[in-house]
Formats: sequence, C-alpha cells, structure tokens
Amino acid sequence: MKCLIDIPQLSVGEIKELMDTAIDIDSHPEKYRERMKYKRLATLFYEPSTRTRLSFEAAMMQLGGSVIGFSNSESTSASKGESIADTSRVISCYADVIVMRHPKDGAPTVAALNASVPVINAGDGGHCHPTQTLADLLTIYREKGRLDGLTVGFCGDLKYGRTVHSLINALARYNNVKLKLISPQELRLPSYMRQRLESGIMEWEETDSLEDALPSLDILYMTRIQQERFADHDEYIRLKDSYVLNLKKLSLAKPDTCVLHPLPRVNEIDVDVDSDPRACYFKQVENGKLMRMALILRLVDGDDVPLPESFSDPGLVCPNPRCVCSSERSVEKKFIFSDGEKRCFYCDHKAIALENK
Amino acid sequence: MKCLIDIPQLSVGEIKELMDTAIDIDSHPEKYRERMKYKRLATLFYEPSTRTRLSFEAAMMQLGGSVIGFSNSESTSASKGESIADTSRVISCYADVIVMRHPKDGAPTVAALNASVPVINAGDGGHCHPTQTLADLLTIYREKGRLDGLTVGFCGDLKYGRTVHSLINALARYNNVKLKLISPQELRLPSYMRQRLESGIMEWEETDSLEDALPSLDILYMTRIQQERFADHDEYIRLKDSYVLNLKKLSLAKPDTCVLHPLPRVNEIDVDVDSDPRACYFKQVENGKLMRMALILRLVDGDDVPLPESFSDPGLVCPNPRCVCSSERSVEKKFIFSDGEKRCFYCDHKAIALENK
Amino acid sequence: MKCLIDIPQLSVGEIKELMDTAIDIDSHPEKYRERMKYKRLATLFYEPSTRTRLSFEAAMMQLGGSVIGFSNSESTSASKGESIADTSRVISCYADVIVMRHPKDGAPTVAALNASVPVINAGDGGHCHPTQTLADLLTIYREKGRLDGLTVGFCGDLKYGRTVHSLINALARYNNVKLKLISPQELRLPSYMRQRLESGIMEWEETDSLEDALPSLDILYMTRIQQERFADHDEYIRLKDSYVLNLKKLSLAKPDTCVLHPLPRVNEIDVDVDSDPRACYFKQVENGKLMRMALILRLVDGDDVPLPESFSDPGLVCPNPRCVCSSERSVEKKFIFSDGEKRCFYCDHKAIALENK
Repeated sequence: MKCLIDIPQLSVGEIKELMDTAIDIDSHPEKYRERMKYKRLATLFYEPSTRTRLSFEAAMMQLGGSVIGFSNSESTSASKGESIADTSRVISCYADVIVMRHPKDGAPTVAALNASVPVINAGDGGHCHPTQTLADLLTIYREKGRLDGLTVGFCGDLKYGRTVHSLINALARYNNVKLKLISPQELRLPSYMRQRLESGIMEWEETDSLEDALPSLDILYMTRIQQERFADHDEYIRLKDSYVLNLKKLSLAKPDTCVLHPLPRVNEIDVDVDSDPRACYFKQVENGKLMRMALILRLVDGDDVPLPESFSDPGLVCPNPRCVCSSERSVEKKFIFSDGEKRCFYCDHKAIALENK
Repeated sequence: MKCLIDIPQLSVGEIKELMDTAIDIDSHPEKYRERMKYKRLATLFYEPSTRTRLSFEAAMMQLGGSVIGFSNSESTSASKGESIADTSRVISCYADVIVMRHPKDGAPTVAALNASVPVINAGDGGHCHPTQTLADLLTIYREKGRLDGLTVGFCGDLKYGRTVHSLINALARYNNVKLKLISPQELRLPSYMRQRLESGIMEWEETDSLEDALPSLDILYMTRIQQERFADHDEYIRLKDSYVLNLKKLSLAKPDTCVLHPLPRVNEIDVDVDSDPRACYFKQVENGKLMRMALILRLVDGDDVPLPESFSDPGLVCPNPRCVCSSERSVEKKFIFSDGEKRCFYCDHKAIALENK
Repeated sequence: MKCLIDIPQLSVGEIKELMDTAIDIDSHPEKYRERMKYKRLATLFYEPSTRTRLSFEAAMMQLGGSVIGFSNSESTSASKGESIADTSRVISCYADVIVMRHPKDGAPTVAALNASVPVINAGDGGHCHPTQTLADLLTIYREKGRLDGLTVGFCGDLKYGRTVHSLINALARYNNVKLKLISPQELRLPSYMRQRLESGIMEWEETDSLEDALPSLDILYMTRIQQERFADHDEYIRLKDSYVLNLKKLSLAKPDTCVLHPLPRVNEIDVDVDSDPRACYFKQVENGKLMRMALILRLVDGDDVPLPESFSDPGLVCPNPRCVCSSERSVEKKFIFSDGEKRCFYCDHKAIALENK
C-alpha cells in the first residue's frame, strides 16, 4: 500500500530522504517541474482547509501535474450517502493520487484501503495531520542543520494542539532532544502524551513562564490559545498575554533561536517579530509545500509505505465516537498493538473490551 | 451546431464510433494526452454533482486540456439574474467546450443555441443525462462484446430513474434486446415509457421478483429504492430487502452476467458483491470517463451534431413548469415532432393547445 | 512593487502598451500560449464574482499557466481570523501572481504591500475594479481606432456605478472627450465626481433623455438601474423603460456608435439589439480577457508599477467604515495627496482630522 496516514509509517531514514528531496527541489526546481506531467491529484476536502488545500495544489502543479477535487460543503453532495470506500474507488478512476481532509478520525485510512492510487492524509478530525509535521521537521532541519541535540520549547495550547503532539512524537525519535513545555495549567499536555514522556523517551520539563524558558531554546514552537478552552474567563484574560511573543520577550532568546508557528496566527506573535531573522513561520509554509512535493513523488513513483500490522478481535471495540469505524458502513473493525496497548487501527484510541462498553 | 443534449442526436453508428474511440483511448492513452492541449473546458454546474463534474474534469485533463468553472451554489452569483443565453455567450470567450448541469429541463439546449463553442448536457433536471447512458452502453459493449441480442434486467426504482429510461430508449435501437423490469408495484415504469414499449419496440416483461428474473439475465442494472417514494412506510420496510443484491441472490445468475449501477449506491448492492467478477459498476465509472473523453474530442474536433428539427406554433404551449422555457426570459417557444406527438423542443414534454392551458 | 490596484497607477503610455499587447495576443495567440508555463496564478475571491474569476483563470491558462484559489464563502475559513497581510505572504509561497476580490475597500493594497509576488485588484468593495476599465478602454480603442475626440454617453445608474466613475476618470486623460450623462435625477453622478468634472477636466452635459442624447454619441455605455435605488416605487416604474435600449431607440444612433455594457445585463438592453453590429458588449468580455492576459504578462515579467507616494500623519483618520484600515489589524494608517486633498492611501476617501472624528 502507498499512503501516508501518520508520521510513524516513515522511518527516520525515510524522513531524511524526503527532506533531502525537498531541499533538492528547492535548489533545482527545473529538474522536477515535469515529474508529474500527465498526472492528476484529487483534493477531497470534506471540510474546508484552504491553506492545506492550496499547498497541495501548488505542490502538484509545481511538479507539472493537474488538480481536480472539491473543497468544502459541496462535499455533503459529494457523499450523498456514498461510503468513503466507494468514493475512493471512484476517484481512483480520475486521479493518480488522492489527498483527503475529513472530519472523522481515520477516514483517510479507509480511503487508503480501498483506493487503487496513493492516499495522503491532509488532516482527519483530531487524529493527525502528518504533512504539517513534515513541514515542521524540514524547517528545523534546514535552520539548525540537524534534528538531534536540540532544546525545543512548545508554547501555548499543548492540550488540544494536534500539531504539537505529532511533532513531539516525531522528535522523540531523534537523539538528545529536550522539551520545554510552556503553558498555563489548564492547557498542559494531555495525560496520554505525558505517560509517553514519563516512559523516558526524551528529557522534558514543564513551566508556565515563556520568559523563563526562552533563553535555553533552540526552537520555539508557538501555538494559539483559544479563549473557549478556559472555564474561567478572568483566568483567560489574566494569562493570555503571557503567551504572546513580542520583540521584548524575543530579546531573551539566543541569537539563533528559530521561531515556528503552524499558522494561521491570530495575535500570539506580534507582527513586529516578523522581520526578526529568527521568525521562521513563513519559511515553514514554503517548506510545507516542498515536503508535499517530495511526498507526492515518493508515493506516486516509489515503494510501498505500509500501514501498521492489524488484527481482528471480536472482543474489542473502539470507544471513540468520532472514529470513522463508528459512522462508516462496512468498515471492518481492526486493531493494532502500539505503546503496549491494543488500539483502534483507524484512530489510535485505546480499545476497550466489548463487555465494558 | 455541436452539442450533446440527448442520446437520440447520435445514430447507432456514431455511438459505435464514440465507443471505438473510448476503447482506443484506454489502450493507447499516450496518443490522446495532448489532444486538447491549449484548450479549456468550462464546467457550469448550477447544482452540485461532484461525481459527474470530476469525471468531465479528469477527462479533459487526460486529453491535455485545462478546466475552469463553478461547482455549486456559487452559481446563484454566477447567474445574478443573467440569462443562460448571455452566460453561454460570455463563457464562449473563456472556454473551448462547455459542460452544463442545471436544475431546469432544457437549460443546456438554450446554452447550445447561444454558445459559439460545443455544449454538453451533464444533467438537466429530470430531463436527461446522456453521458451516463454512454457510460452504460460502453460497459455493456465491452463486457458482452455486443449490444444486440441481450436480456437486460432493470431492478428497483423504474418510475423515477432517469438513467433507466434513457438506457431503455438507447437499447431499443439495437436488435433483439429483451427487457426484464423488476420492481415493486409502486415503482413500475411510468406510463409514457410503457406506451413506448407497448408500441412494440422491444420484447419486455415485468416482475416483482429479482430472484425469478436473475437466471435469465445477461445484464442486471440495479438502482436505488428511495424510502420517500412510498406512500406506505410499512410497504417500504416489507419490500426494500427484496431489491438488494447480495451474493446469495447473485448465485442465481449466470456466470457471465454483468451487474451495473449508476452510483452512488447506498445499500442496494452488498459490498460482498464488489469482489465478484460480475460486478461491473466501478468499471462503469472508468468507462464514463473514457466516453466523456471521446465525446469531447468528437465535439471539439468533429462534425456537427445537430439538434432535432423544430418549428414554431403560437397555438401550442409546453405544460412543464420545470422547463427552461417557462423560467428563462427570451427563450423562443419551439416544438418538435417525436413519437407521433408535438413536443416541447427543450424538455420533450407533450405540448398542449394554448386554449387548454 | 508590482501591482495594479487602480488605473491611475498606469500612464497613458502604459495603457497603450497593454492595449497593443492585448491586440497582439488576439492576432498571434500561439506566441503567448506558453509564456506563463510553470507559473501559477492564485484567485483569492473573498466574495463570489464568477465572471471576473473565470476571466482571470482563462487568461492565465491561455498563457500556459495554472490556477489555484478559492471562490466564495469558503473564504470565511480561508481567513479564520488570519490577516490579509499573513494570507498574502502565505500565498506568495504558492503562486507567482495573486488576483484578489474583497468586500473591503483597499484590501488588495494591503495584500500588495505584503506579498512577494504581483497583486491584481479584481474589485475591492465600492473602491475600484481596474481590469473592467481596461476592458472598456480596449473595446473603445479597437472599435473606434482611438481614445481621443470621442463623445461618450453613460446611461442609467451613474450614482452607484463604480465602473462608470472609473471609466470617466480614465477617459479624462485623453484629449477632447465629451461626456453625455444620461440618468434620472435620483441616479446622477455623485458630488465628488461632479466636482472633478466641474474643475474642467473634460466637456460634459447631463440629460434625462436617452433619445435626445443618442444621435450625438460615438460610444453608449449602458448600465443597470436597480429598483432598490429608488425611494419612490412609482417613480421607478415610470422611469425604468426610458433607460432600456431597444432597436427603435438604437435607430436614432449613428451607424458606427458602439454600445457597451459591463454585464451582467438584466433587461436594460433588449436581446434584439444583440445582433446589431453596434452591440459590442460581448466583445468587451473577450477584450477583458485579453487585457487581463496583457496585465499578467506586464506584472510578472515587466518593471515595477508603483503605488502612489504616501505619508503618515497621526492627526488624520480615514472616515470610511468600509475601508480595510478600520477592520484589518496592524495596517499602518497612511495618506496620499490627490486632487488637492489628503486622502486615505487604501480607499481614497478624503481624510478627516482626528479631532473631528
């Protein structure tokens, strides 16, 4: 199978190859600009995500390919009761690679199992968004020359930020990465992520002060704090400015610290910071496009990228109401072993025994 | 004029040519992949139909052409009170061929009369959807090697299914085609279609049992039964499973029966059937794209495909409230002779005398 | 900077060059059909405008380029609180030229200040829509062979018609152009335009009779009269037909009068007029595409097209609630001198002193 659903499908070596390809594309774009000639990419966006969609479309076109697809609520018609499996088989007649965004966790996995062309996950509910993580990795790699031995701060909403969890998991595979987790009490890393860290995969510490953490950081990954995450409005007002990066706070950082943000930002980074050479969030956008180009080439022209090995177990169920396995007809319930647990093949949630449901 | 509004515009010979081209495209795609280079197709979809739109877009791109257009409710702005005639003239400045989907019967005919480029009907209200029928014909032809001498079953909703009526009319032009019409009482073929059959154009019989009909069929054309078609909910519940195809029922069929479905399916064909070699509904999708490629080539590069000869008659009116002639300003009322009746040029409804209106 | 926000950025000589390029494209399309190969245009339409969008898309494709973008309410997601400045920097990673339609006056100026690729204004609120004016100018130039010495009638809604004001301003730069302003009392040219005319930039007169004006006109520019512009419904009913052009009225015109309309029309020009050789409104559509092609080439490959020189003044404010400077975060308030007044850099409204606000 050729698909990218989540980062763990790729070995560290394969990520390195994608990054090398991305850098080569940037240096020699003319070598690549007809590589996808006569090929079509389909963007199946069951919920809007303009930024991600345009990045994939630009990536495909810059490889000489064409794009078809849908981008928003039209998808309600696109589905018209049709299963993701059927849609994937239909679109396989029209395109050479499928990019899917879907509100249900695991939907692109169902697509990958049924399509006869490669499938790329462009965000499935709260599950994963691997090409954002690839953009983050490439940016760090290009700015610092390595992914090992870095001190990486994550600031803001660490509880709900899917991109934060995915990048932490990815960085855990490199040597000597230290984490500084900077957030208010309410928005600390969720327990499943903390358990993973506590198992000793990397060095980490928590703080609620951006100023305290800044001087030690090689990388600062900023995220947005959303008001609605706070039960107490006054608490939100009291805290929000502490997690805004401005030039004054940035003066505490090292001269080669690299500031990232998955965008869109609202006000968590002052626009004054944009002209500081440490601001790398617009480079992240460019790097995202380059990694998507490398990934398209890899999947269309390269070897298989298998999904994890799965098994059936009639005694288990997936408890996640947002998982595609609970809404999509005819999806075979399957499970994987991961982190020593039995988990849903589609959404990675810990499976529970049927009798406990 | 170069347009395809409905299948009867094409002779049996011309359909054969389109099918031969489609098969040749499938065998030698590289011969065709720059045939529409420097040309543009416009998809004017006044109502969403993602599947049909993507099929046309893939078809044009696979011929080396580009696509512009709109795909949904945006069309309300597209129209902004502009007549179909004006829009067609405007789009003729932007594109080399127009594909139109419109909720009004006959709208693409108005477009064809005003555009200076070819127009293809991609579905106009309840009127017709000729490229679906071309996909059906090619699939039958490729699977069975012929269109003559076949026993063809239609199962499910034969009353409202536009694709069923169109394919029956198309098959009536071949020799020795026998129909088996399989439906509940409520959803039998409508009277205008029955009258046509009763005039002796082909052999036919009706049944309400899929099991009884299956052993004799060369082709089984499945359709969806929609709950809202039944006045009596209990009747729906009692009947619906009889018209679901599963492996058990399929075991009654011949080993070379070919199962078609216009898609999307909901549950009228079990997914278990998909892996049976007799399941041809995903081949239909591929064949639909190939026939659309053949049709685009035929219209852009080939001879005229004229509309039926029409006449004016101030004493006649079209009684169809969904006809474009009743909503579009400045549409000249015209009529044709067909099946021995005077009919509306745009929607094929039987015309009525003005004084009876 | 390379952008086209409004016509005055272009000298008369530069407009002439664009027109010459457009005419050459029309004569020798094959010379231009790969000029934008490997390049991408982004259509950022924060409000729908199908006609304008498709014209730009066809223009880019006819130059061999590709198109990405969004076209409608999806834009609400596109923004998701992201500033126009940030979006422009993001899209600069994906495309080689940006075309923006936005409901706020001045939004494309903000984009131009932040993008690293050329930006074209495709309509910003009530502010301007320069490529429509370029289409109008080319049509007049091609039909009459000149832009000097013409008598030009504008008929209909001269109060709210942005295209009318823009074309009048553009024509004022040519020699011996005479205006006939034909409208009901309610829809006369607004005071700021009248003041400009009264300053003596060109000869002009007003009338409420289309019939009276017609015999003298070289050009008749028709516009739509919208019912909602009238306080008094009876007045609307009484007047509306006076400003409808039909063949009878057209018989009063010279044999070489040229009739323009920015489209879409509703009923302000009878369809009977379409076949009169003096009807040039569909030629305008074609000319609009050609001028957009010329403009894309000019901006992507040519020299800078600077914005007017601006200055800061903390004592001034822009009073326009629809100006982008009042809604967009982090937009630096700037002003220009124009027509002897201090005006907002973004929306051209006369600035007011802060203390008068």
